[in-house]
Amino acid sequence: MAGSSDIVVVSGGVGAARMLSGIVQVVDPDRVTALVNVGDDLELHGLRISPDLDTITYTLAGEINPETGWGLRGESWQAMDSVKRYGGISWFGLGDRDLGTHLYRTQRVAEGATLSEVTAEIVAAWGLDLRLQPVTDDRLRTMVTLDGEGDEAGLEVSFQEYFVQRQHGVPVRSVRFDGAASASPAPGVLDLLGRAGRIVIAPSNPIVSIDPVLAVPGVRAAVEARRDDVVAVSPIIAGSALKGPADRLLVELGHEATVLGIARLYAPLAATLVIDEADAALADLVEAEGLRAVVAPSVMKTPELAAGLARVVLDGREDEA
Amino acid sequence: MAGSSDIVVVSGGVGAARMLSGIVQVVDPDRVTALVNVGDDLELHGLRISPDLDTITYTLAGEINPETGWGLRGESWQAMDSVKRYGGISWFGLGDRDLGTHLYRTQRVAEGATLSEVTAEIVAAWGLDLRLQPVTDDRLRTMVTLDGEGDEAGLEVSFQEYFVQRQHGVPVRSVRFDGAASASPAPGVLDLLGRAGRIVIAPSNPIVSIDPVLAVPGVRAAVEARRDDVVAVSPIIAGSALKGPADRLLVELGHEATVLGIARLYAPLAATLVIDEADAALADLVEAEGLRAVVAPSVMKTPELAAGLARVVLDGREDEA
Repeated sequence: MAGSSDIVVVSGGVGAARMLSGIVQVVDPDRVTALVNVGDDLELHGLRISPDLDTITYTLAGEINPETGWGLRGESWQAMDSVKRYGGISWFGLGDRDLGTHLYRTQRVAEGATLSEVTAEIVAAWGLDLRLQPVTDDRLRTMVTLDGEGDEAGLEVSFQEYFVQRQHGVPVRSVRFDGAASASPAPGVLDLLGRAGRIVIAPSNPIVSIDPVLAVPGVRAAVEARRDDVVAVSPIIAGSALKGPADRLLVELGHEATVLGIARLYAPLAATLVIDEADAALADLVEAEGLRAVVAPSVMKTPELAAGLARVVLDGREDEA
Repeated sequence: MAGSSDIVVVSGGVGAARMLSGIVQVVDPDRVTALVNVGDDLELHGLRISPDLDTITYTLAGEINPETGWGLRGESWQAMDSVKRYGGISWFGLGDRDLGTHLYRTQRVAEGATLSEVTAEIVAAWGLDLRLQPVTDDRLRTMVTLDGEGDEAGLEVSFQEYFVQRQHGVPVRSVRFDGAASASPAPGVLDLLGRAGRIVIAPSNPIVSIDPVLAVPGVRAAVEARRDDVVAVSPIIAGSALKGPADRLLVELGHEATVLGIARLYAPLAATLVIDEADAALADLVEAEGLRAVVAPSVMKTPELAAGLARVVLDGREDEA
């Protein structure tokens, strides 16, 4: 299954975490590196918060909060209740257990550690064997210009102010990646992409999860150079995103919210696109865009389904198990 | 009782909090300002922590943790347990409820609020009517040079590294107040000292709680100028501190750990020194140092005893109730 070489998974949060949980079932986790988006990161209450890194860590550790889809199991909310007493910022929920992660990350960065180093420490503390690699140790922030009414028309906000505070319920005019142009790939990232046996583009939001990873100078070119070994998984199934605003964002930014729209976005990057059985009828149109279409069940409702999709992605062909 | 004018209480943490809880029982809390030490403050996990301010707030709100003497009642420790999982810094205990205070303070300061402003917001949120005034909005840190063995001989550490991390179990060679020389009194502090009807020096540690307040340029002179209206309460009773290392610190730094040692330190500042009944025999010697000695029960074990001591301090004479 893709030999014994490295597997790199270009990752956002929830969708990527599920994809990775499938992949580590079918290959040695030592071979797997998640190359993770940091455009969703934020500073709040003085803390450094990296939602995509943490969602992957908690999911792979089996500790993701099943009720919320983010944060940790067995969570309590005493700190946030206290912040609310003061009238502080409470729209971004931080459970007490989860806070410990942000306290640790913030302290280590203040001591001079890079985000890559702290992330490796956090992943090790959870006993995980895969690597989580933030795409850059530099500051990169996904900024969203809203297309709403009144004061919100043309207002630029951070990703989390769009996604969490406004519950991605406002139309979007444009997206940019603040800091990307001057960011450097984290140490080893370009080498890793160059030598990987397989590069997977996870079924994450192409606009606000995958694109900020590719926006770091050198990363898009490094993926394009490996196009033959790149397999993308469509985050759009039958015209909809399973979760989040990917479908609306695609349309608002002039793309098509179908596997065909995804095919057009990813054609320069990936030789293969995995699409769901629900979209089997569109396989020929996908191939007309210059990618090989592989049709497979892609809704990872169970660990078994995630493992099945992982086999498809790593073999580059439909699962025969 | 000292007319209807302002009462300023030069304050450290625990001892001052008890003194203040007595004072607000016997005068309108609107008249009372605690002028609070910030030399104990620290930055940890990226958070701004002000232990003396918080100890006073939580005590006056009736929410101080009775088991620890610091932090909040009904506390949980999920965030710290999480920090420990990562091998992070855990010697400074931060309960989940307490963390909310530090999150709020840190966010507000990052937004541009001064420590004075945030403190007023926190005090108001707890429904308190007295004022808490940090002596300065600038950075001032009590630094302690240890006199221990081996690596610790001559090592300079922050106050909390001495007090909490080493549980004040190491001899001290010297103390300095980093940043004091370039700090400014917070807005209104010098005016307040100038117009107060009574200035109280709380029974806090003279070396590491009272002295850093006085070290802010202008503050010591402002208190000295009001010497006739200044009443100090001895933190030393029968040669010992009720709590903390004040007695050992006094000796280590060349003072006498008795009410007489306190009298010599406070003679330039205060016309009156309240000493405990246990030290009644030393009253004449105290007066020989140039202060009036007032003998009164000064161990504030109950709210009634705290109120009794407050009456003495504000009247400047022994309680006759």
